[in-house]
Amino acid sequence: MNTSALDILKGEYLPDLEALLRAALNYHADTINTSAHMLHYHMGWEAHQKQVGSVGKRTRPLITLLSADASGGHWRDALPLAGAVELVHNFSLIHDDIQDESELRRGRPTLWVLSGKPQAINAGDALFVHAHLVVQRATVLPVETRLQALSLLDQSCLELTDGQHCDLEFENAEYIDQAAYWDMVSGKTASLIAVAAEIGALAAGATEEQCEHYRAFGHALGLAYQVRDDILGIWGERDSTGKPTDSDLRARKKTLPVIIGMNRSAEFRDLYLSATSSDEYVHHAVRLLQECGARVSAQEIEREQVELALSSLTAARPVGQAGDALQAMAHQLLERTN
Amino acid sequence: MNTSALDILKGEYLPDLEALLRAALNYHADTINTSAHMLHYHMGWEAHQKQVGSVGKRTRPLITLLSADASGGHWRDALPLAGAVELVHNFSLIHDDIQDESELRRGRPTLWVLSGKPQAINAGDALFVHAHLVVQRATVLPVETRLQALSLLDQSCLELTDGQHCDLEFENAEYIDQAAYWDMVSGKTASLIAVAAEIGALAAGATEEQCEHYRAFGHALGLAYQVRDDILGIWGERDSTGKPTDSDLRARKKTLPVIIGMNRSAEFRDLYLSATSSDEYVHHAVRLLQECGARVSAQEIEREQVELALSSLTAARPVGQAGDALQAMAHQLLERTN
Repeated sequence: MNTSALDILKGEYLPDLEALLRAALNYHADTINTSAHMLHYHMGWEAHQKQVGSVGKRTRPLITLLSADASGGHWRDALPLAGAVELVHNFSLIHDDIQDESELRRGRPTLWVLSGKPQAINAGDALFVHAHLVVQRATVLPVETRLQALSLLDQSCLELTDGQHCDLEFENAEYIDQAAYWDMVSGKTASLIAVAAEIGALAAGATEEQCEHYRAFGHALGLAYQVRDDILGIWGERDSTGKPTDSDLRARKKTLPVIIGMNRSAEFRDLYLSATSSDEYVHHAVRLLQECGARVSAQEIEREQVELALSSLTAARPVGQAGDALQAMAHQLLERTN
Repeated sequence: MNTSALDILKGEYLPDLEALLRAALNYHADTINTSAHMLHYHMGWEAHQKQVGSVGKRTRPLITLLSADASGGHWRDALPLAGAVELVHNFSLIHDDIQDESELRRGRPTLWVLSGKPQAINAGDALFVHAHLVVQRATVLPVETRLQALSLLDQSCLELTDGQHCDLEFENAEYIDQAAYWDMVSGKTASLIAVAAEIGALAAGATEEQCEHYRAFGHALGLAYQVRDDILGIWGERDSTGKPTDSDLRARKKTLPVIIGMNRSAEFRDLYLSATSSDEYVHHAVRLLQECGARVSAQEIEREQVELALSSLTAARPVGQAGDALQAMAHQLLERTN
């Protein structure tokens, strides 16, 4: 419940995390127009046409560092693992943006828009390699821990590609049931957040049981995060990129409110399966989703997942300010508006 | 010089390698239309429209197994590392084919042609993850060896992405000097073959010095392999895909004979930089390259690299049939016609 613990620890951790990431990607101001420069641009360190970058929220590595700290370990020992988690996340963003042909990220052109798809595919691959190298080089951790962390991380990456496969398949599907939806988001969103929490505890030398609880915490938090994203994709404010948040309905994304609505309202289903993408379509669809209770149900599911996350966290017996901060993160999720 | 040693050992190794690869990718006949099925298709295990696949030559993992055997180790201990090398190679092929928009590989449609680019990017990512998992699971090797092998493998993958970055850049460049060419092929082709040889020796418990010699052997062999590819891309027979081998000249690929020709013949340079891609252009360009000695020079460079490879191999003091087989591989390279 203590938001200030989270703010205090963010202030303590994030500069060191950023330093580690820059060292991992060999960041110097003089790397303009090299392959490394592409990665530095994506990471938000390089301005483009005077537009300063934004490094993103670094949510996932923060969870790793907090889990290490809350498990009674030294958060600095977990820095390489936190860095790896963030690099994996960014690798997946680079490839996602190509796959979805997204042109904006954090208010700037995506990497493929600037460099073309072939170079951007390759830059994503390079970032994925860096994620592995940063763990392999982490001599602060025993060899066994490094290998186990790599193994957990790669297992989650495999789940991530499975989830992404489903997500891309769903684009061509008329109807998706909730079970398929949960499979997809477990892979695409929850698996990396689950492993972020788990390997933080691992780095701190937590017991296997504790590691499992942290993993369950991250998994439930990840599911809640995705459901919130889905809700914001229909009822949210315009985000920082200026992209209207109702674009999910136009793009026929199979989000949770849509899946619930398809089951409950024949009128919504017919409308959703029609070819139109007009403003009237969006307004009508939003109203039908609201009327059949899809929004309220999605919010309830989100709240359940946050509760699940919090009870897993309690079972992990986190200590100190970091434990408070992890609780605060889960609560903040419910208040997120973009 | 003993080709039959190579054939004997191929017969001994390759069935087990294939079994390991199939287990790594969880191959069953009933995986049709899943994400795993995409990987099985690419690996050559799945027919498409009654067209049976071809698994490729498995040259790189063969080098790993031979190096382990020739270092006095058990080649079976190196199987997971050999498998990882082959999976990395195939990951890079999937992404290469997308980047180059190549429509055929081993006589069948490339993965992106069948599944679309977004799914194929994702399948490549999954294959890259599998390459890591197979090493992490290799309990036959000590933890330290697994971590070191992963580290060497990822370092070579980073060089691979650097080489690929250069190769993609070269498409837009009018002129490339030989130094830039060698940087590019060192990354794109030689680094994975170098590490294939090195980690075979590593798995066998060879000394650091021996590992270095195997690495140098693989590196020189990789450079020779690329130069031979470049020569065949202009003077080779039509390959098994039916693609005319002179397409490199039409595509303005910056291969070694072209780079030599640009330096020696102003007439070739002007022709090459002109916009035409007609048959007359190709015939004229081939003749000019021949006349200025670009072919002969490229062949000399190839031979030098094979000699370098053989002297590194001698320094590594390989033993048994596997040592003979590695020698035979280097010699066969010079006779390769497609």
